[in-house]
Formats: sequence, C-alpha cells, structure tokens
Amino acid sequence: MKTRAAVAFEAKKPLEIVELDLEGPKAGEVLVEIMATGICHTDAYTLDGFDSEGIFPSVLGHEGAGIVREVGAGVTSVSVGDHVIPLYTPECRQCKSCLSGKTNLCTAIRATQGRGVMPDGTTRFSYKGAPVYHYMGCSTFSNFTVLPDIALAKIRTDAPFDKSCYIGCGVTTGVGAVVNTAKVTPGSNVIVFGLGGIGLNVVQAAKMVGADKIIGVDINDEKAEWGRRFGMTDFVNPLKVAGDLVAHLVGLTDGGADYTFDCTGNTDVMRTALEACHRGWGVSTVIGVAESGKEISTRPFQLVTGRVWQGSAFGGAKGRTDVPKIVDWYMNGKIEIDPMITHVLTLEEINKGFDLMHQGKSIRSVVIF
Amino acid sequence: MKTRAAVAFEAKKPLEIVELDLEGPKAGEVLVEIMATGICHTDAYTLDGFDSEGIFPSVLGHEGAGIVREVGAGVTSVSVGDHVIPLYTPECRQCKSCLSGKTNLCTAIRATQGRGVMPDGTTRFSYKGAPVYHYMGCSTFSNFTVLPDIALAKIRTDAPFDKSCYIGCGVTTGVGAVVNTAKVTPGSNVIVFGLGGIGLNVVQAAKMVGADKIIGVDINDEKAEWGRRFGMTDFVNPLKVAGDLVAHLVGLTDGGADYTFDCTGNTDVMRTALEACHRGWGVSTVIGVAESGKEISTRPFQLVTGRVWQGSAFGGAKGRTDVPKIVDWYMNGKIEIDPMITHVLTLEEINKGFDLMHQGKSIRSVVIF
Repeated sequence: MKTRAAVAFEAKKPLEIVELDLEGPKAGEVLVEIMATGICHTDAYTLDGFDSEGIFPSVLGHEGAGIVREVGAGVTSVSVGDHVIPLYTPECRQCKSCLSGKTNLCTAIRATQGRGVMPDGTTRFSYKGAPVYHYMGCSTFSNFTVLPDIALAKIRTDAPFDKSCYIGCGVTTGVGAVVNTAKVTPGSNVIVFGLGGIGLNVVQAAKMVGADKIIGVDINDEKAEWGRRFGMTDFVNPLKVAGDLVAHLVGLTDGGADYTFDCTGNTDVMRTALEACHRGWGVSTVIGVAESGKEISTRPFQLVTGRVWQGSAFGGAKGRTDVPKIVDWYMNGKIEIDPMITHVLTLEEINKGFDLMHQGKSIRSVVIF
Repeated sequence: MKTRAAVAFEAKKPLEIVELDLEGPKAGEVLVEIMATGICHTDAYTLDGFDSEGIFPSVLGHEGAGIVREVGAGVTSVSVGDHVIPLYTPECRQCKSCLSGKTNLCTAIRATQGRGVMPDGTTRFSYKGAPVYHYMGCSTFSNFTVLPDIALAKIRTDAPFDKSCYIGCGVTTGVGAVVNTAKVTPGSNVIVFGLGGIGLNVVQAAKMVGADKIIGVDINDEKAEWGRRFGMTDFVNPLKVAGDLVAHLVGLTDGGADYTFDCTGNTDVMRTALEACHRGWGVSTVIGVAESGKEISTRPFQLVTGRVWQGSAFGGAKGRTDVPKIVDWYMNGKIEIDPMITHVLTLEEINKGFDLMHQGKSIRSVVIF
C-alpha cells in the first residue's frame, strides 16, 4: 500500500513529504492509521544529527494515536477498529524486565528497534524501491505505519486523537515520573526544574496526587504563568536568586524538597535538583536527556545523608497497562492536555512545528492527518 | 569522679592514657561504664587530622558497650544496671527526622554533638581543670562516659560486651545497609565492593536475607577467604580482570546486580558499583566515606535506564529500635561477630590497635577495660 509520510532523508535537513510504499503487517504486527502525532524534542534531537545512532532515511515521530486497520497472523491483543497509542517502550509481558515487575524497560525488541527495523530485521517502508527505516519502533510521521502488537496500547474510543497522541510520550513521561517512578505522596513538597512540556506534566501530576508545595524553577519568567495554570504554587527564577540556589530552595521547603524532578537535561541542574532534596529522604528523579558525553556529579555525602538519585524513562509506565489509565485520567479531568497543545498543523506544515519548538514558542505542536 | 581514658590531645599524635575528671550526668543524661570499645577507621580519620572539624583535646571512640551506672533527672528510658550500646546516631523519636519514619538521621542533638559537647553546650570531661571534649556524642575510649539518654540502646544482658560493642558501628553499618537501606530481597544477586569489616558485614547480611550470588570485589586476594567465611559465593580481584570490570561483573550477574554496595570510600569504585547494577532496577548503596572534596560521577543515562544511587549512614538503623534487634540476631546465630574480632587489647595498648588498622592487619580490634 501507499502512505503519505514526512521523511527524514538525512540529518540537518527539513523533512520531505512524500508518498512511501508500505508493506502490510507480518505475523505479530499491526497496521495502524495514524490520526495525529506530536512533535517531540527527541525527534528534533535525531533530525538535528545529535544522535550518533540516528538512522537515515527514516520516518521519525513517536508520539501518535490512531486506529488499527489490519492485524497480522497471531495478533490477539488488538483488533481492527481499535484505537491505539504506539509505544516506543513496548510491553511484551514475557521478557526478564517485564516479568521482574520492577521496570517498564521491556527488552523484547530493543535490538531491532535500535537498528530501525521490525523484529524480523526488515523495514516495512520503502521509497522508490529503497528502504526507509522505522524510528523508535513507531514512525508516527506517516499516515499509516506498522508496529509489533506488543508496542500498542489499546485506549478508549472516545478519547480525541489530537490530544491523546501527547500521551504517547510527553504526558506519560511527566505524569508517570511522579506516579510510577517517584511515587510522590500527598502532602509532599516538590520542586520541578524546567517548565517545558515534561515539567508541566510533572507539575499537574504532583497536584493530582496531593502534593503541598509545588515549586517550579525556570530561567524564563514567562513559564511562571504556565506553571501556575497546572498547579505550581511557587516560582523561582534562578537568575534572580541572590546567593546559592540550593540554599534558597532548601529554605522554601523547610529543609529541602521531598521530591525533585529534572526536566531540563542539563547536568548542572540535575546536581542542583539532588542537592535541593531533604536530608534523610529526599528523592531526585532525572527525566531530562543530557547531551552526549555530559556527566552528573555530586559529593557522595549527599547520598550517605539520605538523598536518593534515580531516573525515569517513559514515566516508568508499562505501556499497554498504564497508558490506557492515563487516557482515562485525561478523559475524567484528573489531568489536562488541551491547553498544552499550542499548535495544530497539517503534515505539510510539520517543519514549522520543529521551528516553533526550536524557538521555544510551543509547548506541544500536533500534526493532524 | 575520675575515669581512665585514652585522650587525643592533638591530631597526628598517639593517644595518651590519663585519668580525667568526669562530671556526673545532668538532666536527661546517663553515666555509662564502658566495658569494651572497638577501634574504627573514623576514629583514625579524626586522629590523623583528616577531619577538618575535628576537636582536640577529646576522648575518641564511638563503638562501645557498657553498663548504666547512674541516670540524671528525668531519665526513664534506661535504669542503673542496664546494658547499653552508645549511639552516635541517636533516636529522639520527636524531631522531624525521627517522626518522618523515613530516616534514622535524628537531628535532635546534631549541632552540639558536632561541637564536641553535650546538649547543654558543656563538656563533662576535664583534665587538670581544662575541658576535654566529647567525640561523636560517645567517647567510648574512656572507662566512664556520659551520654544523653536518647543516645543509648538498651540491649539484652547476656550479650558479651567484647563482641556487642562492634554492633555500635561496624556491624550495624553493614548489616543495616542490607536490611534497612537497600532492603535486599531473597534470591537477589549482590556485589560488595571492599571486604573490610563493613564489607564482611554486608556479605553476611546478604546471606542472612537469602541472596543468591554474593560477589565480593577486593584488590587484595587475601580477603577472598574472609569473604567466603561469611557467605560470599564469588570473588573478583579487579587487578586480575582482563578488560572492563563493569562488563565482567554484568556478565557474572546475568545483566547486572540487583544490589551493589560500596564499602571502600573510593569514588571511582562508587561509580563502578552503580554501573554494575542491572538495567531497570539495580540499586547501588554508598556506605564508604569518601575523602574530603572527592565527588562521584556518572552519565545520567545510568539513572534514566533504571539504576538507583543512594547511601546509608549507620545502616539506616534507628539506634534504640534496631540495634537491640541486631544484638538478638547475633545472639541467635543469624549473624556472626566473634571471628571478626581479630585483636583484643587493653586500654594501654590502644595505639597498637590504630597501628594494626593502618597496616590492614585487623578486621576489628577491641579494647577491653
């Protein structure tokens, strides 16, 4: 079949909208019509050439929502007509990681996913007879795409695609870090470093679970209004703090935060986030992805005196199990998504979405097919 | 009254055995006759002048066991004749930390303890009319010493002093890190870096809680026998590993350890301990105390992919609550102490105990009064 797609033919070039050939689903695979997809920083990271393992030509995009149009042999977890969210972190429920019950980092198809191919080692996309590769196992910048069945979360059919697609990455990453990874408890004091899309989702999840103080930290004052919109109680601009930022934050939280979250990817900020934790029990969760080669550091005394340093990927969410719950939370009004979708674009406008992101002008741009 | 004590008159000099004047216990304080005391690396750290906050002259020692001889006004938690272990980490059960239920790092008397004085700001020791200061709130290198009642764990009277004193620091630090801080589960794979006294106690606690593989790592081959003596199943000498140590350890543990422990204080080893953890859930606990100014580093990717970096002080043990339990475990044969007490000395021989430690010839030297 044919599918209209935005193709990354090479790094550092705009995406090109072309018609690709798409093979149908093989055994264990599913053909999905993508209805909407968000544009995430990770797509830009690869397109801009920062990912040394980036593969071209490929169909980027990993934050989508759509409808199952065809299932391959042996697929029983979803049926034609089901609404689904593609999962760049699949959930096979059979590998050592899934069975551990202690992590969401399913390893069933990690190797092939990293090579831009399906689990059988081949790609379903081609252009003029030449292979075009998959991306993060999703490739949602295509009107139709093929995924392994273990990489699809079945969601309720009344959830709007143009909002629920954001749950495919950003929402789950932020909300899940609070709920699954840090397990923030009611009455806690929370500090969120970076009030972009992830940070705002951390803020609203902290509010959802009953945190007391929710302090947002950002060097851009314009983010304060966004933070308050989602439940932030206090705003700190580090550029306007006289003296030591850690001491300032410790003062605001009666000895340090119970939970901090880095949503910046800046390794210096990660250190600040750890050290702003309360002695004895503060937990700092790294969400942001750091530049290649950058390292985090601290004095071990920070750990010995009771602070915990951990990280979160895809919000610690087991995709098929937890993503449908987050869709429910959105539909039930426990979390908001609509105001975060700042721009809606057509596929032809997708490069504009990248521009908006680079300019810091969007929380989230969504492409509707 | 008078008490015989080993006094540190200044840094980098041997202790001197002298007779000190000791004031009796004031309100909330307790006079304890120390029956035995271990000599710990922390005492040497201070005596050797590495602790920039070290106070002289002082009575060092923080790993003792003894008998209550007199109680001050208002003391109800212990009575004359009780057997006790002094606690350098007290348990007031009333401060924010104690009431949190999340940490053992009681803050009730932290400020005065750090200044070498009792909670009222004065010292009970003096020599020829001049003040001699307390150390870590314990000063067990004195036949008699005075402590706040919140810094005494009441233990069973059939526990031998010359063994139970070691529970005042080393045993609890190692065993507690496994039981209270990391909460090692049965069937886990564990790697212990450094097979000194703390490491051996980590090893035996890992065995006690039912760990599968217990891998000891030490650059001294002679430690292998010690490790096996307490439950170590595999020994790795990093100097004899061809290639990458982390890769070697990950290979030994089917993807990485469930739990690792640094018992070396070396910040490079701390990094190795983190990175040898299993992706998705491995937890690395720092126990060793690093040199002043040294920092730990890693790529944040290590955390984002599910490893947790934390620390443990006094084994996460709430002294008055948990130390008596560890004494029971020793008396019931769940853990061993006797073979770790490699040297028994008189107070007059105490400097020899420091020499043995510096030469790496002892696991633990104990002074008996």
